[in-house]
Amino acid sequence: MHVYLDHAAATPVRPEVLAAMGPYFSQEFGNPSSVYDLGFKIKEVVEAQREKVARLIGATAEEIIFTSSGAEANNLAIKGAVLAQQRKGKHLVVSAIEHHSVLNSARFLERFLDCEVTFLPVDGNGLADPGRLRKVMRDETVLVSIMHGNNEIGTVEPLAELAAVCREKGVLFHTDAVATVGNLPVDVKELGVALLSLSGAALGAPKGTGALYFRNRLRLVPQIHGGIQEDGRRGGTENVPGIVGLGMAAELALAELPPRAQHLTRLRNLLVAGIKERIPRVVYTGHPERRLPGHASFCIEAVEGEALLFMLSREGIYASTGSSCASKALKTSPVLVAIGVPPALAQGSLVFTLNADTSEADVRYVLEKLPAAVAKLRAFSPVWKKLQDEEAKNETIHQEPVRHPPHAGHGPAL
Amino acid sequence: MHVYLDHAAATPVRPEVLAAMGPYFSQEFGNPSSVYDLGFKIKEVVEAQREKVARLIGATAEEIIFTSSGAEANNLAIKGAVLAQQRKGKHLVVSAIEHHSVLNSARFLERFLDCEVTFLPVDGNGLADPGRLRKVMRDETVLVSIMHGNNEIGTVEPLAELAAVCREKGVLFHTDAVATVGNLPVDVKELGVALLSLSGAALGAPKGTGALYFRNRLRLVPQIHGGIQEDGRRGGTENVPGIVGLGMAAELALAELPPRAQHLTRLRNLLVAGIKERIPRVVYTGHPERRLPGHASFCIEAVEGEALLFMLSREGIYASTGSSCASKALKTSPVLVAIGVPPALAQGSLVFTLNADTSEADVRYVLEKLPAAVAKLRAFSPVWKKLQDEEAKNETIHQEPVRHPPHAGHGPAL
Repeated sequence: MHVYLDHAAATPVRPEVLAAMGPYFSQEFGNPSSVYDLGFKIKEVVEAQREKVARLIGATAEEIIFTSSGAEANNLAIKGAVLAQQRKGKHLVVSAIEHHSVLNSARFLERFLDCEVTFLPVDGNGLADPGRLRKVMRDETVLVSIMHGNNEIGTVEPLAELAAVCREKGVLFHTDAVATVGNLPVDVKELGVALLSLSGAALGAPKGTGALYFRNRLRLVPQIHGGIQEDGRRGGTENVPGIVGLGMAAELALAELPPRAQHLTRLRNLLVAGIKERIPRVVYTGHPERRLPGHASFCIEAVEGEALLFMLSREGIYASTGSSCASKALKTSPVLVAIGVPPALAQGSLVFTLNADTSEADVRYVLEKLPAAVAKLRAFSPVWKKLQDEEAKNETIHQEPVRHPPHAGHGPAL
Repeated sequence: MHVYLDHAAATPVRPEVLAAMGPYFSQEFGNPSSVYDLGFKIKEVVEAQREKVARLIGATAEEIIFTSSGAEANNLAIKGAVLAQQRKGKHLVVSAIEHHSVLNSARFLERFLDCEVTFLPVDGNGLADPGRLRKVMRDETVLVSIMHGNNEIGTVEPLAELAAVCREKGVLFHTDAVATVGNLPVDVKELGVALLSLSGAALGAPKGTGALYFRNRLRLVPQIHGGIQEDGRRGGTENVPGIVGLGMAAELALAELPPRAQHLTRLRNLLVAGIKERIPRVVYTGHPERRLPGHASFCIEAVEGEALLFMLSREGIYASTGSSCASKALKTSPVLVAIGVPPALAQGSLVFTLNADTSEADVRYVLEKLPAAVAKLRAFSPVWKKLQDEEAKNETIHQEPVRHPPHAGHGPAL
C-alpha cells in the first residue's frame, strides 16, 4: 500500500498537462520573442495560456505575469510593488504566518532598502483580523500581504474583508494564493486584491511554473531583469512548455473545482474525525471550518513529528510536518508559534494534504496505521509517561477520564 | 526545405534530455526537501545533476546553484554579489555589450541601491581590453561582469586576462557564459572567474533552466527569497525535471564538445565565405577569429533586417537580427552601437546561429536563397540606389570597382 498525502509539498504532473506540454520541448520549440512565423506562433500559444490562467481567477490576460514558481511570484509582488511605490512610503505589513518567500522578501526590503515591516499577528485559529490590520497601517504603508490559505495549518483568511481595509486606505493588497487556487473558488475582483500569486506545481503543472496576477496597469519593478518579456515585468526567455502545462492545469482546475473541493472535504473530514476518535491528546490545528478542503493538520502530544513521518513512510504513508521548504531547518514552525502552540507540542506536527486521486481506502489505511505508529513512539517517550502519570492522578481525583485537551478540534487556543 | 539557424534564440530539447526528464514529472515527483525516502531519493537525483553541471565547467557540485534561466543566474550574480559586499563598496563595471539581464541588473543597483556602474567600452571587434578595465576600476569596485561570448556579434572575450586584472585587485569577476558553455571549453578555474552564468536552454535542455557557478563559499544575497533550497541562496521548490534535463544536457555537452565545435566552425566558415563572396557590401561583425564556433553575424548595407528575416522565413530559413530578447523594441542594437556600426548599417543586422544538426546542405540552401532576398530588398531601397550611383561615379574616377567597404571581414572598425 502506498498512500501519498503530501500534495502540498509536491503533486504529480497530470497526464493531460504532460500531454499538452509534449510538442513544445522539441518540435514547437521557438522563442516567443522571435520576429518570424515560428516565433509568432509560439507567442500566440503563450498568450492563450495567459488567458486560461486569467480565467481561473477572474482576471484578464494582460494582468498575468508568468514566473518560475509561486515563490518567485511572491518575490515579484512584494519587492516589485514596494519598490515601485517607494516615493509614497516604505512600510509594509505581512501576516506572521506567511510563506518564507513572503517573509524573506519583506526582510530583504528591511535590510537593504530601508523599509519597515510590521508582522501582523493572527489568532489561535490562524485568522488575521481586519480591525487589527487597520490599526497597524500607517500613512507610509504601501503594501499589505496576507496569504489566502495557509499551507501548514490550512486556515483560509477573510481575504475580502482584509483587502477592503486596504482599498479604503489606498494601499495595495497582495495575497499568496498558492494553496487555494484550484482548491477553492478564487476571484480576484470579488476578493478585491491588487496582486495574487499562484503556483503551477500546486495545480498539477510541473515544478518551475507559477504566475502573478497584478491589477491592470499596476506598476511593478522587475525582480528578474532582462529583455522585454512579460511586457517588461519579468526577464528571461519564457518557459514555453511549462507555461503550456500551467495553462492546461488552470483549464482543468476551473472545470473540476466544485466536485474536487467536495471530494477533498469529505475525505478530509473522515480523516480528521477518525484521528480524533482513535488517538488521544491530538490537537487539530488551524481553523476548524474556514480551511483548505484537502488539508488536515495536527499537533500530537509527546510525539516527534519527523520520527512519526519516518514510521509512517515505512508503512507506505507520506505526510509532512509542515512547510517542506523549512523542514530541514528543524526549528519550531513559526506558523505554529504564531497561533500559540507551545514549542513542545509543535514538535509533534503532522500535516496531511489530499488530492483528487485520494480515495476513501487511502484514508482508512492511514486511520489503521497511524494510531499504532503514535502509540509505538509514545511507548518510548518520557513526556508521554509523565502525561499518563498526571492523568492517572487526575482520574483518581475526578473519577473521570480526561483524554482530550479542552480545545482539541477547535484550534489550539492554548 | 526548413533551415533553422537561430539556435541562440531557441534550440530544440534533445531527445536524450527529454527521455531523462520523463519519469520526474508524474512518477518520481517528490519534493527534494521532504524528509522521507521519496524526498531523499529526489534530493539525490538533484545533487547528481549538480555534479554533472559542475563537471562541464570544471567546478565542484557545491559551487552550483540551479536557477530558472541564464537571465536569472545573471541577476543573482550581479545583484547577489554586489549586495553581499555593499560595505566594501558600491561600484561595478560591466561591459557595454552585455546581455540585457546583466545591463538591467546593474541599472537596478544604480537606481535603487546607490550603486555606480561603469560601462566598459569595447573595440570595433567587440573586445574588452584588460588594460582599459584596470583603468576604470576603483577602490570601491566590488564586481566586474564581462560576458564570455557575445550572442549578437559572436566575439569571445579574453576572459582569463580580464579576470586576472580583477583577481590582482581582489575584485569579483562574473561572466555570462550562456553562449559559450557547450560550444567552447569552459573551465572556471582556468578562466579564474568567481561567478559564471549558464543557460540550460542553450544546451538543449528545456527553457526555464539555468545555473550559476559561484566560487566556493562566496557570499550571495538571494534574489528569489524563500526556503532553504540551494543552500539558502535561491528559494522556490527545485524544478526537478528541468534540473534533470540540464544535468543530462551538461553530460552530453561535455562528451561531444570537440567534434561539435569543429563541425560548427567548419559550417560557419563555409557560410561566412559564401556570403562574402555572393553579396556585395556586407560587413562581418564581431571578431573574425576569436568568436563562437557556430555564430555568423553580418550587417548588410541598404537592407532592413526584419524585412530580410521575413523574406528568408518565406523560404523556410530562420535567422535573427540580434538578441531575441530585445528584437521587438525595434531600436538600434546597443551592441552594434558599441562596436561602432553606424545606425543605418545596424538596421541591416543578420545573425545565424548553427547547432550540431546543421548540415552542409542547410548552409548551401542559405547561400542559394540569401543573395536573391537581399537583391530583392535592395531593388526597392533608395539607400541602395544612392550607393550604386556613388559607386558608378567612383568607378568612372578610379577605373576600378569598390564593392566592399575596406574593413569587411575584419570587424566593422568603421
